[in-house]
Amino acid sequence: MQFQIKILGSSSALPSSTRMPSAQAVIYNKTPYLIDCAEATQMQMRKYSIPFGKLKHIFISHLHGDHFYGIFGLLSSFNLLGREQDLHIYAPPKLKEIIKTLHKLNGDELKYKLIFHDLTSNGKNLIFQNKYLEIYSFPLKHSKAVWGFLFQEKEKLRNIKKEVIEKYNLSISEIVKVKNGDDLIDENGKLIKNQELTYDSSKPRTYAYCTDTIPIKDLDKYIYNVDLLYHEATFGSELADIALQTFHSTPSQAAEIAKLVNAKKLLIGHFSTRYKNINPLLKEAQQVFKNTIAAEDGLLLNL
Amino acid sequence: MQFQIKILGSSSALPSSTRMPSAQAVIYNKTPYLIDCAEATQMQMRKYSIPFGKLKHIFISHLHGDHFYGIFGLLSSFNLLGREQDLHIYAPPKLKEIIKTLHKLNGDELKYKLIFHDLTSNGKNLIFQNKYLEIYSFPLKHSKAVWGFLFQEKEKLRNIKKEVIEKYNLSISEIVKVKNGDDLIDENGKLIKNQELTYDSSKPRTYAYCTDTIPIKDLDKYIYNVDLLYHEATFGSELADIALQTFHSTPSQAAEIAKLVNAKKLLIGHFSTRYKNINPLLKEAQQVFKNTIAAEDGLLLNL
Repeated sequence: MQFQIKILGSSSALPSSTRMPSAQAVIYNKTPYLIDCAEATQMQMRKYSIPFGKLKHIFISHLHGDHFYGIFGLLSSFNLLGREQDLHIYAPPKLKEIIKTLHKLNGDELKYKLIFHDLTSNGKNLIFQNKYLEIYSFPLKHSKAVWGFLFQEKEKLRNIKKEVIEKYNLSISEIVKVKNGDDLIDENGKLIKNQELTYDSSKPRTYAYCTDTIPIKDLDKYIYNVDLLYHEATFGSELADIALQTFHSTPSQAAEIAKLVNAKKLLIGHFSTRYKNINPLLKEAQQVFKNTIAAEDGLLLNL
Repeated sequence: MQFQIKILGSSSALPSSTRMPSAQAVIYNKTPYLIDCAEATQMQMRKYSIPFGKLKHIFISHLHGDHFYGIFGLLSSFNLLGREQDLHIYAPPKLKEIIKTLHKLNGDELKYKLIFHDLTSNGKNLIFQNKYLEIYSFPLKHSKAVWGFLFQEKEKLRNIKKEVIEKYNLSISEIVKVKNGDDLIDENGKLIKNQELTYDSSKPRTYAYCTDTIPIKDLDKYIYNVDLLYHEATFGSELADIALQTFHSTPSQAAEIAKLVNAKKLLIGHFSTRYKNINPLLKEAQQVFKNTIAAEDGLLLNL
């Protein structure tokens, strides 16, 4: 099953000539999920061929403009494109009020329904699930209330060996039981252990998104063993005091968090526009956590 | 004196991969004036090197999202860049309420002052002037209240012949009078006609911006003899019924307006994204008004 991360914006609050502010598309099983929606996100979605019509879920980490000012235009474009299906928005409660008030003041009406899911600050919460995927929110710490998001594949059923089905003439319900890990009693009353009938399925993959935040010293209570961790690294360590004052992180802090949560890979982003060249930021992180890469607009990662 | 038009967005409501929604910078005497501010206008300003710090006046034609959804991000970026000087916004009155409500709901505060100038629907109004330039609003007709804008150079003083100053030993006050068109009486009491002392100054240049609108049959009562007319041409004549229903214009209608207002040159834009190739739209206009060009993002015109 396809599980991809497409970076739509990798800058911090100010856009640069090459980096837009925060937005990412998580593409799972051909379905995009949008995380953050800065100004120009709909332009970036168009540029990078993220299918508008398939987007049903938008996750907004917090209400700084560089993470949600693109939602007004996106909602409007959906309307112009004739959207009828519901759109789910997972965001701090105030966003609902902001969008509804803007539409009311300006006399705008959408032809489709917005369904808001309020993010709350208490612990790790399952905010979405379908057959294959679970999405959790968890609190981070910034100058505004902010949440991280964890995309986690569900535990997969065991893979049944093809020859087993014929050999024991298994019914559909027996196949389901075996795939769920049950042993089998054959027609002679003999017990066949599950491990003779099946092999391991692939390990569920996970992606965690953490911006804007100071490093959270006990983040491992919310996320652990993640395949890919996106963590902001707005300022280099030479500006650690500014990072702290503005509730942001440095690359080495992001890398320490990657170690803490036992990430396989770290992706840093949300770079201040003062860095024309982000190689020093990348190197700083790699000195602490080797398997680090730097986000850039258009980057596609396969999990 | 420099008088330029830079196209920042030439698409209609939906952006395309090559065209952003409506925004233009009028650059007069090295000072930019922004007309409309669709989503991604600040990105386009950066791309085309429109100096942020020199922008003091923004003109919003009407309150459809594709003409103002970029203002939230632009105001926020100004704040992050440390702006202190006032920013003047000329717009339908509701925009003030929308911006103030958004900021209040989200707890945002700007460190500089916004000064709103409400557009009203009555006739042609002088809404801005400085030493060299006058800007007028005038009503157009769309599904929302909408205004056009006329940028008009002030009448220039006559150019005094250099040798005259020495010949008649003119004082500063005499020079001013002569430049204003007065005749001169020399020390012998002889009348010297102004036309012997001066020559004509260059003709004041004008730029008119008209979007979104149906063709206004008596637009010549507001603008006449314009050097450059920007007029929307959203749909080709084959979709004239849709243009009418949605209160837009076709290229041939825009061209008829150019004739009506005795424009020197017509610039069409605000193209529907259904036109991947806008040559047919351009040709349609040129059949009625030959000196027509088509807007594209990044186009720079000198008046």
